[in-house]
Amino acid sequence: MTADELFQKILDKQSFLCIGLDPDLSKFPEKVLETDDPVYEFNKKIVDSTHEFAVAYKPNIAFYESLGSAGWWSLEKTVEYIRKRHPEIFLIADAKRGDIGNTSKRYARAWFDNFGFDAVTVAPYMGEDSVRPFLDYAGKWTIVLAVTSNDGASDFQFMKDAESDMYFFEKVIEKAASWGKRDNLMFVAGATQPEMLKRIRKLVPDHFLLVPGVGVQGGSLAAVADNGLNGACGLLVNSSRAIIHADESNEFELAARLKASVIKNEMAAALKKHGLTGRRA
Amino acid sequence: MTADELFQKILDKQSFLCIGLDPDLSKFPEKVLETDDPVYEFNKKIVDSTHEFAVAYKPNIAFYESLGSAGWWSLEKTVEYIRKRHPEIFLIADAKRGDIGNTSKRYARAWFDNFGFDAVTVAPYMGEDSVRPFLDYAGKWTIVLAVTSNDGASDFQFMKDAESDMYFFEKVIEKAASWGKRDNLMFVAGATQPEMLKRIRKLVPDHFLLVPGVGVQGGSLAAVADNGLNGACGLLVNSSRAIIHADESNEFELAARLKASVIKNEMAAALKKHGLTGRRA
Repeated sequence: MTADELFQKILDKQSFLCIGLDPDLSKFPEKVLETDDPVYEFNKKIVDSTHEFAVAYKPNIAFYESLGSAGWWSLEKTVEYIRKRHPEIFLIADAKRGDIGNTSKRYARAWFDNFGFDAVTVAPYMGEDSVRPFLDYAGKWTIVLAVTSNDGASDFQFMKDAESDMYFFEKVIEKAASWGKRDNLMFVAGATQPEMLKRIRKLVPDHFLLVPGVGVQGGSLAAVADNGLNGACGLLVNSSRAIIHADESNEFELAARLKASVIKNEMAAALKKHGLTGRRA
Repeated sequence: MTADELFQKILDKQSFLCIGLDPDLSKFPEKVLETDDPVYEFNKKIVDSTHEFAVAYKPNIAFYESLGSAGWWSLEKTVEYIRKRHPEIFLIADAKRGDIGNTSKRYARAWFDNFGFDAVTVAPYMGEDSVRPFLDYAGKWTIVLAVTSNDGASDFQFMKDAESDMYFFEKVIEKAASWGKRDNLMFVAGATQPEMLKRIRKLVPDHFLLVPGVGVQGGSLAAVADNGLNGACGLLVNSSRAIIHADESNEFELAARLKASVIKNEMAAALKKHGLTGRRA
């Protein structure tokens, strides 16, 4: 999928919402826990009730990995289900992988070939050869961590590089942007740091940014849109817990739908404000 | 396991060798490929033929993850086998995980609780709350990436921090050392950068270092030992391909054994040179 194709999907739905499929079993209602594969059943219900408001889904792999091989299986079935029922969806594996080149190749194979995700999040610490094997997949996307949404972001990402006086995360963006292009590379830019989006837009005005941290983590959608939108949207804003665990009763999927529709409406308003409506010329 | 207990194991075997269980199916002999679970069969043979020369084994998770749920299953069986047959072994999951605190907790659970590893490698980019959930496991070890052995290490790890004039990897070590202690925290320090070991030893004279990159990647064991050994050894030196794929014939395990024993002898000599022989006082 190209960046323009992704933009078209955003225009079609008037939404740049990505929903994080990070299922927390302790918040599952009884009727889901009683099924053979609660995680899969939960995901199906969430996806079926929210897909019209979302352009992307993003399972965070930790939530599946922590369940052992059963979790792996739930994830495989979830991806297959979304591909079959909602083929327009952009699917992101939030895996934050990264290793020496020879090894990163295997991670890329796992997430692109085996699972068939459109995109994978990648940690930049190990540099170019750890990221390159992901970028080398035709038609797939690599999403490099730049500014994350957690408290720990301030530990290293905001160190100043002595040579350039740039923040460390800016060096990550500058270098990674030279490895990939607008059609295969995005950056993670936490919603909890909206003022940083302006700095990021100076470095990569045209790239898509994946923005986590709206919702439970406290980021503001309006601030993100004002600082991050570009002429082809250029944003995927993620919300996980605030949508999928909005309610813990047997009617959880209705609460999720309501929450997703509210966010989608805010997004449609932001797109309108920036003149990004209807079909592209 | 405490650092002193690990040191005792090293003295007992006169070896600080960690063997990377990174099985490459394209290098498996026929007799292994014909079994029901080739990865498990291969690992068993490698472990049985090399365990007397090694204190630790380190499966790199990418090699299993890329095989889907079958790979997961091979890994579970491998860990169980080592625990049962060779209970003295220190087991490292080379996973290079790291996410926001809430999510890192799940990764820690996956590798410590579910699989029962003694240690997990963790990427530092997301800062304290991404590392903390691993450190919080009593009796377990967190191994934070500092200097890696790949070419890409030079992209970010050697940036200079404007405020302190320290390398970025040194800031990682300095900060992480304040989060953990000698008994639950190690650092990855690539053998391809032996001169950096001296700098690292100034920051963390007492911590264990996990040193990859000896063997195929070109690092020198002698240089690593001279620059990195401390009074309680303080090193685990890893070799993967050079041992496990030393030979691709049906007698691969003998070649692996021979290779491991040669490295072990070099290590015993280095320990002797540094007065680290016999039982501790």
